[in-house]
Amino acid sequence: MSIEELDNFKQSGDYIQSLERGLQVIQAFSQENQALTISDVSKLTGLSRPTARRILLTLEHLGFAESNNSIFTLTARTLSLGYAYLSSNNSWSIAHSFMRDFVNQTGESCSISILDGTDIIYVARVSTKRIMSINLDVGSRLPAYATSMGHVLLAYLPKEKLEKYLDSIDFEKFTDKTIVDKEQLLTILEDVRKQSWGGVDQQLEEGLRSIAVPLRDGTGKVFAAFNCSVHAGRVSKEVLRDEFLPLLQETGEKISQAMAITNSSRYV
Amino acid sequence: MSIEELDNFKQSGDYIQSLERGLQVIQAFSQENQALTISDVSKLTGLSRPTARRILLTLEHLGFAESNNSIFTLTARTLSLGYAYLSSNNSWSIAHSFMRDFVNQTGESCSISILDGTDIIYVARVSTKRIMSINLDVGSRLPAYATSMGHVLLAYLPKEKLEKYLDSIDFEKFTDKTIVDKEQLLTILEDVRKQSWGGVDQQLEEGLRSIAVPLRDGTGKVFAAFNCSVHAGRVSKEVLRDEFLPLLQETGEKISQAMAITNSSRYV
Repeated sequence: MSIEELDNFKQSGDYIQSLERGLQVIQAFSQENQALTISDVSKLTGLSRPTARRILLTLEHLGFAESNNSIFTLTARTLSLGYAYLSSNNSWSIAHSFMRDFVNQTGESCSISILDGTDIIYVARVSTKRIMSINLDVGSRLPAYATSMGHVLLAYLPKEKLEKYLDSIDFEKFTDKTIVDKEQLLTILEDVRKQSWGGVDQQLEEGLRSIAVPLRDGTGKVFAAFNCSVHAGRVSKEVLRDEFLPLLQETGEKISQAMAITNSSRYV
Repeated sequence: MSIEELDNFKQSGDYIQSLERGLQVIQAFSQENQALTISDVSKLTGLSRPTARRILLTLEHLGFAESNNSIFTLTARTLSLGYAYLSSNNSWSIAHSFMRDFVNQTGESCSISILDGTDIIYVARVSTKRIMSINLDVGSRLPAYATSMGHVLLAYLPKEKLEKYLDSIDFEKFTDKTIVDKEQLLTILEDVRKQSWGGVDQQLEEGLRSIAVPLRDGTGKVFAAFNCSVHAGRVSKEVLRDEFLPLLQETGEKISQAMAITNSSRYV
């Protein structure tokens, strides 16, 4: 459907609001909100208490949640929902062996993400030691403007989409170095396009540095970003650019090629 | 809620059937069913075509699916649903560094799973080369009776739960070696309890061999299984038992201890 058709659909009697609300409740659970009462869920989602209750009890009945003394937690069955995407898009798993080689050679973590709204969302990750305060895994979301993969994905957006993005972000200053200015971000994106890679130095978190390159399909279109993140105290900006970047680019090329072959054969 | 309360709840006006159906539609997508029409979804779920259509369009409106010429695919946003569980149960991520050490020492993949109905469901995995015909990742499901982790999880079930399990499985003969007999399975589970580990030799797939050990909480209760899988042509049963098992047990102990500390502090 086109964007207008989708908007009209929401007004139609066919739209299933309780499905929207149910998915909202699942996403209310997070690292900060591991165990929630009905009233917590109501607060986090803006749904009324009776609605939150009905959804939580339905999720419990279906085995996606469980409760103990009126405190709800999600169950592992929820993973099946994410796995439905992963297994139906198993081209990401093709990237894994190349990513593992990269990690074995560098000793640092690497990830692939795509743009989803104003966030990047991780679709593949091979990690070593944890260096960030939050736990990143497939399915994690981070604001695009504060990440190297986000810069790469934004740099290659069509002009209208980039403008729409810029109009809809709420900049947040995560560190002293976070870019919170549209014009400054646009200048950075231009550099990313020129050099075909992006880098972020402690703009999302103190002590975290990362570089990213685009992954392109057979037609040259950027469909994802591939990055490597390091601890700022361990790897200097120069080492990251001179030693890690060439390997990241080489690995990115291999992933792009392997995925292009799979995706073209998939639709034959 | 108790099992009876949950059953009664389904009959009540509070139960949200459209949420059940929406989650069913998401799970209709898989490696074999990557791109589906309304009528495919209707066939796979047993829902009527108009219902399948309303759900697919609602999912598209919410950004969890997209369509091209009336063929629907899931989007990466679906990963957020699984990640809601993973990030709200980040104790699994504690296991990762121990799992990576195991993989570095053995060169083989290892996984953690828990029981969900009659299936095991993967909650953590660190893999090397792919040796199975299907792509295993966090969220994957496999029938408990045909896997080493399943044997370990079943072996420590309370008697009533095990009987319920045995009554509800439909045995399928995946290979010549698959156990499809209740009595034989019970004998195996008894051995698993005695020796504190389980092993499966090409019962799920030709050429695949694996061993598993239980993970126990502070009270000794088994809460998950930890396994290592190898190619049968590369690692003999003897090497698996004499060389891999001790390391698997040692790593399992470390994971159990690390998770026990986290979980006890989590509820203080």
